[in-house]
Amino acid sequence: MALVPVLTDEQAGPEASAVFDDIRASRNTDYINNIWRALANDPKQLKLTWEQVKTVMSQGALDPLTKGLIYIAVSAANGCGYCLHTHAASARAKGMTPEMFAELMQVVVLASQTNRIAIGLQVEVDERYKESPR
Amino acid sequence: MALVPVLTDEQAGPEASAVFDDIRASRNTDYINNIWRALANDPKQLKLTWEQVKTVMSQGALDPLTKGLIYIAVSAANGCGYCLHTHAASARAKGMTPEMFAELMQVVVLASQTNRIAIGLQVEVDERYKESPR
Amino acid sequence: MALVPVLTDEQAGPEASAVFDDIRASRNTDYINNIWRALANDPKQLKLTWEQVKTVMSQGALDPLTKGLIYIAVSAANGCGYCLHTHAASARAKGMTPEMFAELMQVVVLASQTNRIAIGLQVEVDERYKESPR
Amino acid sequence: MALVPVLTDEQAGPEASAVFDDIRASRNTDYINNIWRALANDPKQLKLTWEQVKTVMSQGALDPLTKGLIYIAVSAANGCGYCLHTHAASARAKGMTPEMFAELMQVVVLASQTNRIAIGLQVEVDERYKESPR
Amino acid sequence: MALVPVLTDEQAGPEASAVFDDIRASRNTDYINNIWRALANDPKQLKLTWEQVKTVMSQGALDPLTKGLIYIAVSAANGCGYCLHTHAASARAKGMTPEMFAELMQVVVLASQTNRIAIGLQVEVDERYKESPR
Amino acid sequence: MALVPVLTDEQAGPEASAVFDDIRASRNTDYINNIWRALANDPKQLKLTWEQVKTVMSQGALDPLTKGLIYIAVSAANGCGYCLHTHAASARAKGMTPEMFAELMQVVVLASQTNRIAIGLQVEVDERYKESPR
Repeated sequence: MALVPVLTDEQAGPEASAVFDDIRASRNTDYINNIWRALANDPKQLKLTWEQVKTVMSQGALDPLTKGLIYIAVSAANGCGYCLHTHAASARAKGMTPEMFAELMQVVVLASQTNRIAIGLQVEVDERYKESPR
Repeated sequence: MALVPVLTDEQAGPEASAVFDDIRASRNTDYINNIWRALANDPKQLKLTWEQVKTVMSQGALDPLTKGLIYIAVSAANGCGYCLHTHAASARAKGMTPEMFAELMQVVVLASQTNRIAIGLQVEVDERYKESPR
Repeated sequence: MALVPVLTDEQAGPEASAVFDDIRASRNTDYINNIWRALANDPKQLKLTWEQVKTVMSQGALDPLTKGLIYIAVSAANGCGYCLHTHAASARAKGMTPEMFAELMQVVVLASQTNRIAIGLQVEVDERYKESPR
Repeated sequence: MALVPVLTDEQAGPEASAVFDDIRASRNTDYINNIWRALANDPKQLKLTWEQVKTVMSQGALDPLTKGLIYIAVSAANGCGYCLHTHAASARAKGMTPEMFAELMQVVVLASQTNRIAIGLQVEVDERYKESPR
Repeated sequence: MALVPVLTDEQAGPEASAVFDDIRASRNTDYINNIWRALANDPKQLKLTWEQVKTVMSQGALDPLTKGLIYIAVSAANGCGYCLHTHAASARAKGMTPEMFAELMQVVVLASQTNRIAIGLQVEVDERYKESPR
Repeated sequence: MALVPVLTDEQAGPEASAVFDDIRASRNTDYINNIWRALANDPKQLKLTWEQVKTVMSQGALDPLTKGLIYIAVSAANGCGYCLHTHAASARAKGMTPEMFAELMQVVVLASQTNRIAIGLQVEVDERYKESPR
């Protein structure tokens, strides 16, 4: 069980309920994920987090599916089972195919191993990569 | 300094030299990154790692730039400074613009915070996300 | 299930039993947490760990509740579900209110995101912060 | 060097400059840390991050010094050298004594070891801690 | 549930089935672990991973049991519950005694605490350890 | 620079000096590593940590070199550059050959990739591995 109550619609206060309404409208679904119901105990944090999710994950220089893939990769690296389950479902809804998911995991695995060997051997950054780009 | 010698072309044995040649040909550059020169102390591991990099990072269901972005995201999550420097350069060469890099980091930051709150509150996976997709 | 048996009072040897007795006396409870029962397979490690917990978490320049909050924050960062559950309960017993827990998580989330961006962008330490304090 | 330019006052655009002004006014200093100058390449992210820092780290149910200690603890767990240097300085300015810093690190170390043993032995959460508090 | 189907022998394609056969022959068992059945959705990755496991974990300058202990230590540090369960069983089959497992965990715990204090205090590498060995 | 002063022999108090003496006698060297000089600001923690290092790393069911290899593996997983440099030197002094170091890193890399895929795919522990051994 979560360390805080996972609030029902009835238990959520007006500030949290307003966020729930916006989630429902934005995602065109009636279902509210447990993470939002847990965050509803701290309505300000709930609102701030939801606003960031809406802004960051929307179309920009990167498209929403690419952002979804990146989100999954970070969640795998951080070991967040909750996030992996919910965002894999979300990415599939945005068009992630089994082939794309397999390649995503291949890159995660490759990076995990090369990250670890570069750290494990304490390899120094090559001079040519030390300059900031203009 | 690295924990193993960063081998020069002269110090690298024939097996490692063959990999260096392939890196030069594949990347159309004469420069060999320090990570490969460090791995050259274990030529089998060098060859295996390079083969994986070539295979995994090439065009597939995901394009090479998207894979490069995912690689950077994982490296940020794993805290590999070496990998961040080299793969940011590589992704820029593949077309990553400053806007794309900024959005990539926004997603990394967002995932890091939502990963942490889901873990910190020990939120349980919603029943509907527990089923494996067919 | 744990990777080692979670020893009952009957299964614990004399050295482990003595630690159990001290835990019971110190905490004014009859209940022994699973972590201690798992550590009881290595009585020396059990005793050492319990001594450290008693010493470190007691009143000093920082009060026990503040130490409890810091402990929870590290457990969230390290992704230890077991530790989060037990230490959230312990901190509540020491006076942690829901408001305090919410703010604790806000700081954990903020640090997680700024840590990640400082690492992700490989920002260098400002000259003025490089000096050790006297 | 950072992966993005660390912008001078002259290079920062109007949106970033406004944030710099607010940092200077709020902190009563003329100095702007490198992290803000790096974030200035993405003025929206700069503004959002700074707003969060201001809000989260201010007085609430927890006082600013306690929040500063928690921030340092998370930065140690996440391995962010930049954050450790800047926030140790900031916490000292808020009243963190060497004794407090030593005890903070003792708790970080204790949590790191007990987190690791609970994870390493895969200890299961005791039934009594599985219930969410009301 | 896993994020991909855990394939039965009937669902696995010919490439994955060939790997299953090799696992059965090499390990002298009929049982195939869930991780291989999950990887079977990406047969190339399955084959590559299994080949690496076979090569890396076999006798070399280090014996298979020592390698198994190192594998468990890394899995504890990375927080992989799945890997801890399966590799603890595998190491026991190779001769790991309860005493060896207890000492392995003692080293993991010691490293976790000294790693954390060295990082938390940002201790600089002594000049004498900066030179690469020849 | 470290976040605390790295104390010279002259600056260290009597309690810390006694530990320095024991380190010198136990290791048959006059040199004291920076980590001990940093910990000398908190003499109790210095003494406790050194006692643990002496006890845990000595001969037991596992030999000191095997323990040294495990320590390096955990330090690579935790990304502690300081620890990697000092413990690689220490393991070489105990007999770690370049071949052993190469194989150690191969296991670290293999575990990092299989840990990540097991976590990334959220593979469930097989029923047969869920039972604690007696």
